[in-house]
Amino acid sequence: MTQPAEASRHHTFVDACRATIGAAHVLTDPHDTAPYVTDWRRRYTGATLAVLCPSSAGEVAALVRLAVEHHIVIVPQGGNTGLAGGATPDSSGEQAVLSLKRLNRIRDIDPHNNTITVEAGVVLADVQARAQEAGRLFPLSLAAEGSCTIGGNLATNAGGTGVLRYGNTRELCLGLEIVTAQGELWDGLRGLRKDNTGYDLRDLFIGAEGTLGIITAAVMKLHPQPAARVTALAALASPHAALEFLALTQRFAGPLLTGFELMSDFCLKLVGKHFPQMRYPFAESHAQAVLLELSDSESEEHARALFERLMEHALEEGLVEDAVVAENIAQSRAFWNLREHIPLAQAEEGLNLKHDIAVPVSRIGHFIDETGAAIAEHVPGARMVTFGHLGDGNLHYNVQAPEGVDAKAFLTQYQTSIARIVYDSVHRHRGSISAEHGLGQLKIDEAMHYKQPVEVQLMRTLKAALDPLNLMNAGKVIR
Amino acid sequence: MTQPAEASRHHTFVDACRATIGAAHVLTDPHDTAPYVTDWRRRYTGATLAVLCPSSAGEVAALVRLAVEHHIVIVPQGGNTGLAGGATPDSSGEQAVLSLKRLNRIRDIDPHNNTITVEAGVVLADVQARAQEAGRLFPLSLAAEGSCTIGGNLATNAGGTGVLRYGNTRELCLGLEIVTAQGELWDGLRGLRKDNTGYDLRDLFIGAEGTLGIITAAVMKLHPQPAARVTALAALASPHAALEFLALTQRFAGPLLTGFELMSDFCLKLVGKHFPQMRYPFAESHAQAVLLELSDSESEEHARALFERLMEHALEEGLVEDAVVAENIAQSRAFWNLREHIPLAQAEEGLNLKHDIAVPVSRIGHFIDETGAAIAEHVPGARMVTFGHLGDGNLHYNVQAPEGVDAKAFLTQYQTSIARIVYDSVHRHRGSISAEHGLGQLKIDEAMHYKQPVEVQLMRTLKAALDPLNLMNAGKVIR
Repeated sequence: MTQPAEASRHHTFVDACRATIGAAHVLTDPHDTAPYVTDWRRRYTGATLAVLCPSSAGEVAALVRLAVEHHIVIVPQGGNTGLAGGATPDSSGEQAVLSLKRLNRIRDIDPHNNTITVEAGVVLADVQARAQEAGRLFPLSLAAEGSCTIGGNLATNAGGTGVLRYGNTRELCLGLEIVTAQGELWDGLRGLRKDNTGYDLRDLFIGAEGTLGIITAAVMKLHPQPAARVTALAALASPHAALEFLALTQRFAGPLLTGFELMSDFCLKLVGKHFPQMRYPFAESHAQAVLLELSDSESEEHARALFERLMEHALEEGLVEDAVVAENIAQSRAFWNLREHIPLAQAEEGLNLKHDIAVPVSRIGHFIDETGAAIAEHVPGARMVTFGHLGDGNLHYNVQAPEGVDAKAFLTQYQTSIARIVYDSVHRHRGSISAEHGLGQLKIDEAMHYKQPVEVQLMRTLKAALDPLNLMNAGKVIR
Repeated sequence: MTQPAEASRHHTFVDACRATIGAAHVLTDPHDTAPYVTDWRRRYTGATLAVLCPSSAGEVAALVRLAVEHHIVIVPQGGNTGLAGGATPDSSGEQAVLSLKRLNRIRDIDPHNNTITVEAGVVLADVQARAQEAGRLFPLSLAAEGSCTIGGNLATNAGGTGVLRYGNTRELCLGLEIVTAQGELWDGLRGLRKDNTGYDLRDLFIGAEGTLGIITAAVMKLHPQPAARVTALAALASPHAALEFLALTQRFAGPLLTGFELMSDFCLKLVGKHFPQMRYPFAESHAQAVLLELSDSESEEHARALFERLMEHALEEGLVEDAVVAENIAQSRAFWNLREHIPLAQAEEGLNLKHDIAVPVSRIGHFIDETGAAIAEHVPGARMVTFGHLGDGNLHYNVQAPEGVDAKAFLTQYQTSIARIVYDSVHRHRGSISAEHGLGQLKIDEAMHYKQPVEVQLMRTLKAALDPLNLMNAGKVIR
């Protein structure tokens, strides 16, 4: 229950915000704030004092200083496409959402330095498009790219399909502009490949999900545009064979390899069932399939010739049971479509349990064998939907109810116990329980459970040092 | 003057260290400690209470706990090849050097995960060799690789010649084992490409030069071995032309380009003067030369063909005035030798002023023009020795006394004023005054001078939070 003194403090804060950035940019009507208080997957719904929509880093800093003065928690939000509830306020109605969407300028592009300087609210697809116009590639790519923002990508250190070659969002960032928890503006917008002049503040704010300060702009790396991107599909007997095949591919293709995605046969069957227009690509069934992508700086012909030599070698060695190299861009696109339809087919099939995990690449086969066996023992007939970025050890390890079993009842009964089996197995293999989605509010307890006390203590020390009032996205990442 | 109470505290500490790691591994005789108290360039000579040589992370942790108990500053040291005095104790004789050299085990190599787990004291060349045995490449490479250690490389975020393609030491590290300033052991030895479960502690310790905690082991990334490395030399009219040529090369070669080193004509002439057996590679003089390296996953022939096409194109466009592609490995080696003999030739020519700086790649031409003009105005006849890793914007921007002028007198008179000209120019171009060597004790004042107060304050906050007693390499990086 909000006390009168509290209500007055909230009221004064909101008024001061209006005076600072204009009343039109301070939303308090529930109709206006609704889109900002529910997360993208609709797992979390909070309430908010106000949604603040500043248009510059200076305004963000001024708002944070007001928050400090009035002791208000700030929840930074980008495109609101996060998968861990990291941008959703709690239900108290005492937190303020700070939307970065109006900080949406591309401040600079420097093709000779291979950098682009963008504000936090720029949509990922717009960064990609601007880079392409300048004859460069911005390689970060993920399902939400049409609505997620670069600030959100940085705050969660987003992954996606290009990590194998280009790294996570962290590896694509050279410099940041930050509003600290004290409302100071730090211009760390350096576009340097080498700079050893003190502590790495940049990487501390990246992946911190807005709990240490607010990212308002960034200098991101660009890469040369490849002349051609060509894909191929390979059919294999097991994840173990896929690992051997990955090593062979890396030897043949080196840095030209930009995608190596594993899909179990059940994944492809699900796609075929719910999207019958998508053709199963092989003549016969195979236990596993791999989607490969080469990004070639020479030509499409060169990439295809490389694929042909690779597949010939892999077939001879018995690593691969069948293979198709895309004949043209349309077919390349079709192969990616298969991969991208797996989550959609899964949704059609019914509610399911999702786990975004990573293990060392070399452990993937053992992880799949052991975890699958443990779940099968726990829930006979449970159907594993295993696919993901094998090249970086990141699996979307999802579990669907046994055939004919009610999905909702299955979730209610097994959600916790299956997650425990999966995460215990991840932990045994020295893996990560959140490979690319972050902790948000969804996985704090799990993270605290598996992390060593000394690491949790180090995290708490940093949080207390940089945000002593606990106003920056309180309740996320760390408690 | 050390007071009796102090002397007794020091004595008790050293005795406790002997009891913990064995008297043989606690050096106090000045003859034994001498190699540890002077830096590699002999710019700094300190004194020490004792040199501690633990053999395990557990022993390091125990020694740090003793340091906390007795309030003794610990100066971590690897191969003692640093260029900024970061591993040299001060002259008080009250600091203890902690050598990591006996932590020299390669704990694990995992070719399928493309990782190697090494202790801090392993020599860089040994990491390279072990990777090669396993058919992998560990791409970090620098002049001191025969004696520097991986722990020192991490503590200073070492750069070197492969950064353009493979990144700095930071980008090559996946996980760390750390002894905190409280003497706790954190096992962060993760070998994961994706892990978003909290704050990025790893990158905070990398590049912190031992001021926040001690790195005792690390998981480092490996890459596929290229099938061939081929080099070429190109002659150009200016640094501006070299920039255009870099963009063209990146378009042609994409990620196969692993080296792009600029050398002014004066650099090559110096090499020719002091090492006459090294042939000047072109028929005529040209203002600038670039050394290019391709690392090709196909073959030497493929790399050479790519170079031929590139050079033909660049000659046609008038970007390049002349070019030589190495015919074989011996000639590739000879081209690198030219580059590596520049610092040696400089030393032969006499004492000189060295600046390890970086600017955005696109600013290199303007930086060289403007800074050169300012120095020429300040000291007519001063000779610029400008060379370095153009591909990552990192120049070794060195200045030699005018012909016939006594080098020592030149240094005494102009060291400070020329550094100010160079660093002011770096600052105007949003560059770094220490690109790959770190701050150590050499550049703290300069860093404090150029950094924004808010950044210095953030660094101080982190230092105070993680090392509240200021025992971890006190006097380095931050004051």
